[in-house]
Amino acid sequence: MPAYAPARDNRAVTESDILSLLRLPAIADAEDSAQALRLQQLLDDKTKPPGSLGRIEQLAQQLGLILASEAPVLQAPQMLVCAADHGLAAQGVSAFPQEVTRQMVENFLAGGAAVSVLARQHGIALTVVDCGVAHDFGGDRPGLRVRKAAPGTADASLGPAMRAAECAQAIAHGMDLVRELPGNALLLGEMGIANTSAATLLTARLTGHEVAACTGSGTGLVGPALAHKLRVLQSVYLRHADARTPLAALAAFGGLEIATLVGVLLQGARERRVLVVDGFITTAAVLVAQALAPAVRGYCVFSHLSGERGHAIALAHLGVRPLLDLGLRLGEGSGAALAWPLLQSASLLLREMASFAGAGVSKRGELAV
Amino acid sequence: MPAYAPARDNRAVTESDILSLLRLPAIADAEDSAQALRLQQLLDDKTKPPGSLGRIEQLAQQLGLILASEAPVLQAPQMLVCAADHGLAAQGVSAFPQEVTRQMVENFLAGGAAVSVLARQHGIALTVVDCGVAHDFGGDRPGLRVRKAAPGTADASLGPAMRAAECAQAIAHGMDLVRELPGNALLLGEMGIANTSAATLLTARLTGHEVAACTGSGTGLVGPALAHKLRVLQSVYLRHADARTPLAALAAFGGLEIATLVGVLLQGARERRVLVVDGFITTAAVLVAQALAPAVRGYCVFSHLSGERGHAIALAHLGVRPLLDLGLRLGEGSGAALAWPLLQSASLLLREMASFAGAGVSKRGELAV
Repeated sequence: MPAYAPARDNRAVTESDILSLLRLPAIADAEDSAQALRLQQLLDDKTKPPGSLGRIEQLAQQLGLILASEAPVLQAPQMLVCAADHGLAAQGVSAFPQEVTRQMVENFLAGGAAVSVLARQHGIALTVVDCGVAHDFGGDRPGLRVRKAAPGTADASLGPAMRAAECAQAIAHGMDLVRELPGNALLLGEMGIANTSAATLLTARLTGHEVAACTGSGTGLVGPALAHKLRVLQSVYLRHADARTPLAALAAFGGLEIATLVGVLLQGARERRVLVVDGFITTAAVLVAQALAPAVRGYCVFSHLSGERGHAIALAHLGVRPLLDLGLRLGEGSGAALAWPLLQSASLLLREMASFAGAGVSKRGELAV
Repeated sequence: MPAYAPARDNRAVTESDILSLLRLPAIADAEDSAQALRLQQLLDDKTKPPGSLGRIEQLAQQLGLILASEAPVLQAPQMLVCAADHGLAAQGVSAFPQEVTRQMVENFLAGGAAVSVLARQHGIALTVVDCGVAHDFGGDRPGLRVRKAAPGTADASLGPAMRAAECAQAIAHGMDLVRELPGNALLLGEMGIANTSAATLLTARLTGHEVAACTGSGTGLVGPALAHKLRVLQSVYLRHADARTPLAALAAFGGLEIATLVGVLLQGARERRVLVVDGFITTAAVLVAQALAPAVRGYCVFSHLSGERGHAIALAHLGVRPLLDLGLRLGEGSGAALAWPLLQSASLLLREMASFAGAGVSKRGELAV
């Protein structure tokens, strides 16, 4: 089990290291606001009433800004399913046993999981990342990258989930993964029995909401089992009361997959890639990443509102509204994959719709009362 | 201009004619409820927490019931964009001139409209139907079927929009169109300057809500122009106070495209096709069709909640919640096309996801506290 590393050291070492790496281009600077206007003019000149494509128009504008193009083309989309185990699972906070993490990794690779089916449907390349599964997969395989900072986190009810160095390593793995991948769009997924617990604790700490308000059923806990989960989380939350910075909280609560996703988000934004956020867990990673580098949020497309309770709180804190609201609470990146065709639609509508002049269609008001 | 035909004759003649044609299989009978259970068991045995795919699971179940299959395959989807003009446009109820209807038909055919782009994206065959555009297209062309019961409706502020025979003819056209088309899924779209007015009047009459509550901006009316539209609609509504049956109301308020869509819905349900409903106008057609044959609703997938005001009222009356809520208010079938990949996902997840046993994944609770 990793030794305890006080939060103060966490802050002193890794936060500055990582922040020094960050030179993120914001997409709200002067150049971009001129580009936003040009994009809106292009959309308004399409053969439709102004604004009638609703939030698809805002999405088209965002894609144009991220990809710095008036005709953005989404290329070689990459789904990264970051998987890891959580020591806290030993406290009975999940309806499923820990071994399900590695079993689902095999299921992703065999093509039988929901995200496998959806990625195949949409031509999204799927890479599973072993960020810290409590199992030896024997190295990389087709579709699997082993980037393990530790074989699972420590039990956060006993000490911090990660040592500072492990947390930094997991973030660095995420950054490295993005550097190795082609394309200009990343879809974020995850797998890890008990990771709604880590996401709950991070969401509570980083948004300032009560743990109880952020705690949900996860994979399906109800009644006494859910009450038990809440008691465990409240106790863990108090134990790490001094882990107040984003990285200290991440190290204290875990997990390795969330830390890797933080690295993916930071490097993805740096490379101006479109970042498609899935549900509660990946949004917790966004909370950490945007607390480190606020510009990250502008690169994120929030795919759906999860049925998991704390997700709405995290999204409200970020001030965003996701595309879908289908009561999903599966994770894996399934919501991101389900929303993906809407991004393609936004891009295609911007590129391929005719203008009023081009199509010989009369504009509004010319004959109206 | 068509002669006036009193609503009483309307009822006496066409309603019984059409109802006699209807032998719709309901999807809520005993056989289907056993099938629904089997489908839910299949879904619950997939490698995911039960219910965690949210409304996608309900959608998968609905597709299985409509297509009477535990492995439903959506085949050769057909988008029907039914276009027609409205005599009421002369009263200044739209921000766009009437000529835009025929211009948009050309735009659909040339591939430059939103629905053209989206149908192309998803491999949906697009057929534009001239149900009554005030323009002679010179007969069928690739992608265009001319099925005109009249060259536009009459001005409903002066008399009924359609004669009973025209209304019945337009419905028959819709039924015939479906018989000619391949595949097992129909996506419903429409185009017709002033058709939010007809949909508003139908929604008010068939749901019992006030005209004011059902009246929205359409293509973008605001302030005095919107107030003018409301005054016109309230006057038309009162003028046809005796048009109370679904078909009498349809004939009184129009339009020809809505009547054709009613026929599409009736015949589509009869053939057990999946019917993907778009926004306010196509939902008004569902209101008429399900009032004639309540079983129709079970075949409908409601794709999105429109930004147009009366749509929420129509959906609430039908007791349904649509898949998307993106503030769309374009029509054309654009929302149906945007939602289409979700239907494909539901079908693929049901067919291709691994079971717990098949993938060697532990079920919940085996090791949980």
